Amino acid sequence: MVFPTMAGMSVQAHSLATAEVIAVGSELLTSLRIDTNSLFITDRLESIGIKVVAKAVVGDDGPSLSTLFQQALDRVDLVVLTGGLGPTDDDLTRAVVAEVLGRHCREDLGIIEKIQRRFNARGLKMPEINRRQGLVPDGAVALDNPNGTAPGLWLEHGNKVVLLLPGPPNELKTILQALIEGRLLSLAPSNFHLCRRILRITGRTESNVEEIAQPVYSLWKNHATPVYTTILASLGQIELHLTTSAETLTVGAERLEILTKELVAVLGHSVFSTDGSTLEEIVGNKLVERGHRLAVAESCTGGLLASRLTDTPGSSRYFDLGVVTYSNQAKNNYLGVSPDLIVTEGAVSELVAREMALCARTKADVHAAVAITGILGPGGGTTQKPVGTVAIAVAVSPEPVSRTFHFLGLRSDIKFQATQAALDLLRRELE
Amino acid sequence: MVFPTMAGMSVQAHSLATAEVIAVGSELLTSLRIDTNSLFITDRLESIGIKVVAKAVVGDDGPSLSTLFQQALDRVDLVVLTGGLGPTDDDLTRAVVAEVLGRHCREDLGIIEKIQRRFNARGLKMPEINRRQGLVPDGAVALDNPNGTAPGLWLEHGNKVVLLLPGPPNELKTILQALIEGRLLSLAPSNFHLCRRILRITGRTESNVEEIAQPVYSLWKNHATPVYTTILASLGQIELHLTTSAETLTVGAERLEILTKELVAVLGHSVFSTDGSTLEEIVGNKLVERGHRLAVAESCTGGLLASRLTDTPGSSRYFDLGVVTYSNQAKNNYLGVSPDLIVTEGAVSELVAREMALCARTKADVHAAVAITGILGPGGGTTQKPVGTVAIAVAVSPEPVSRTFHFLGLRSDIKFQATQAALDLLRRELE
Repeated sequence: MVFPTMAGMSVQAHSLATAEVIAVGSELLTSLRIDTNSLFITDRLESIGIKVVAKAVVGDDGPSLSTLFQQALDRVDLVVLTGGLGPTDDDLTRAVVAEVLGRHCREDLGIIEKIQRRFNARGLKMPEINRRQGLVPDGAVALDNPNGTAPGLWLEHGNKVVLLLPGPPNELKTILQALIEGRLLSLAPSNFHLCRRILRITGRTESNVEEIAQPVYSLWKNHATPVYTTILASLGQIELHLTTSAETLTVGAERLEILTKELVAVLGHSVFSTDGSTLEEIVGNKLVERGHRLAVAESCTGGLLASRLTDTPGSSRYFDLGVVTYSNQAKNNYLGVSPDLIVTEGAVSELVAREMALCARTKADVHAAVAITGILGPGGGTTQKPVGTVAIAVAVSPEPVSRTFHFLGLRSDIKFQATQAALDLLRRELE
Repeated sequence: MVFPTMAGMSVQAHSLATAEVIAVGSELLTSLRIDTNSLFITDRLESIGIKVVAKAVVGDDGPSLSTLFQQALDRVDLVVLTGGLGPTDDDLTRAVVAEVLGRHCREDLGIIEKIQRRFNARGLKMPEINRRQGLVPDGAVALDNPNGTAPGLWLEHGNKVVLLLPGPPNELKTILQALIEGRLLSLAPSNFHLCRRILRITGRTESNVEEIAQPVYSLWKNHATPVYTTILASLGQIELHLTTSAETLTVGAERLEILTKELVAVLGHSVFSTDGSTLEEIVGNKLVERGHRLAVAESCTGGLLASRLTDTPGSSRYFDLGVVTYSNQAKNNYLGVSPDLIVTEGAVSELVAREMALCARTKADVHAAVAITGILGPGGGTTQKPVGTVAIAVAVSPEPVSRTFHFLGLRSDIKFQATQAALDLLRRELE
């Protein structure tokens, strides 16, 4: 089916409610690449109230793209196509869209001049092949692409909009963001403001969080002004994403504040962040508040805890020293842990972790220290201390606190979870 | 369009050449989740010669799923649907597939008994709602799911196959892998063996690698027995993925070996790995070969270099000590770097990096040491030493070597690139 030409007809204000995203490119059908552009597009469209109802990936294949595009155009108000706007034979998006919409392609000299200037600025001559990027369907509006040669294209078709965006993420993001603040905003549902809030939780399993939080947040789903809650689990951390739409940002934020308070009331101290900040940032802020400097002694985590703590800009205000002592000998040589203690207790034990923390604190002459010692695997586990056993100590008060954990997963998973548990133990000690 | 029932008809041997993957689930249409299952599915199907020609994501919406599934069934030999097999009202995949194939759903008591046993094993009674997972289209073969309640389902429809897999990745992977070694293998193109090889490169830009490698690998694309090359760029590293299909694995491996040698001949020392091993592993192997132990002194990278070096199992054989000295004072206190040197040269300078490496080597009494000092930003940059300036020194020979780099990007990007450059400098010194 080919639609009649409707160039010149204008889309009515506030007519775009639904969208579909089609990513074009054979490389996206291999196991090496995934279409992550659609996450950004979905996020931005959602923020102005346009709902993405389906996503598709198709190779550089004219007939398949043609079918998919036609079907999408039948279903939704806005079709966003990404990729296939380059200068080579593989790049079919412009031609296929023109054909389905029943329009001719013409050369846009303004676009070609811009591409020429881009090459000239680098002291190069535009290859003849790039002229193809100036071929656009009748009625298309070129959208400025400051980061690349292919412009985005905006086409109106009856009450529908077709948007062509280049595939490289930095090019696509810049063009789309401009539309979200301009053309697309004016066509999106009116009086719509999306509000979001993220709660971060550690020290509980996903099912435990679900069990406790679900009776609270599910009541909000059916409100006249609903709040939707999504649980996202990652290593050593659970996130609750709350979203609502409201007539103003203030009204939405107030609604989210009430639900946040209700959730914190039932989940307690395990909620470490209600404003999107990370566990590293929370710990860093508490250290600054208390005027504490920190030393870190790591065995199995090999420097990952120090690395995470120094990921935050300004961490030099509280981070003093990190020591990675992998071997028993190193624990003695550089920290001063007693070899006898390691023999009697084993290197992976709370007593050794406590001694490591105390030694690090003394050595650095600071207020606070954290130590981690454990077995990451795949080798090294025993019946008594299987792979995943990790002892963590935190010395903030005169007497250190310590705990033994049993983590599951790959070597890298155990490593990350150990640093997460250490940061959480430190957070609780600083409270 | 509804197809006539064809239960009982058998798919002919070696008839599955093309496939399409449909991921079902409204959560996959938010900006928070992405369908990564399709990467695994693509990888496994490719390995037995079945080509994925399109992928789609659709919400928990019957009509949309029905349309997409019908269209896929018209286009390809194998349709893989993932998700929507749970016990709730949202889970529509079974019912929609049955309707499109024109089949009735019946209760499979064998499946229900298995689900009941799974609950009983945990001391629980199966909720009545889970009975729905035992409803299957006529003619479906249930595929054992050791990791969850919903079995996979295998349906033959004329010469086509429809495969329903549960959404959780660990459940899906186990079921699919069994099929790849069994049912699917017997229906895949015969005499097909996929061979792969990965070359890893550092110290060159993507466009530089492309410029040098393209004239070599492009000749192989049009061979009677072609090899396909994909360039993948990530932070501080370029990968060349070579793939070919051959009648035996040996023949394919020989072909890839020839192209690998041709590529190494033009790219030289910057190719650090031709067997998939990481830069950390290569460096570790070289240290073990030479019987060297290593000490690491880090400022701006905050422990990330030590953490990467200890990511490899068995790294205790060569990793001795890591020290994170963030402040100038710490560089003096724990390493013994002269405060005068820091004042005259600046903390971010090759002379300070060399001194840090020499001090760490002496302190740990080892053969080799690496030191990094730099400015990650966002603050702290000057005109002479902008954000991204990093000085790295490696002490393997009596006289250390050093270099100054200027990295671009976010704080985390600069941090990772600095560790990558340090590992590469160490690799070259150990050669």
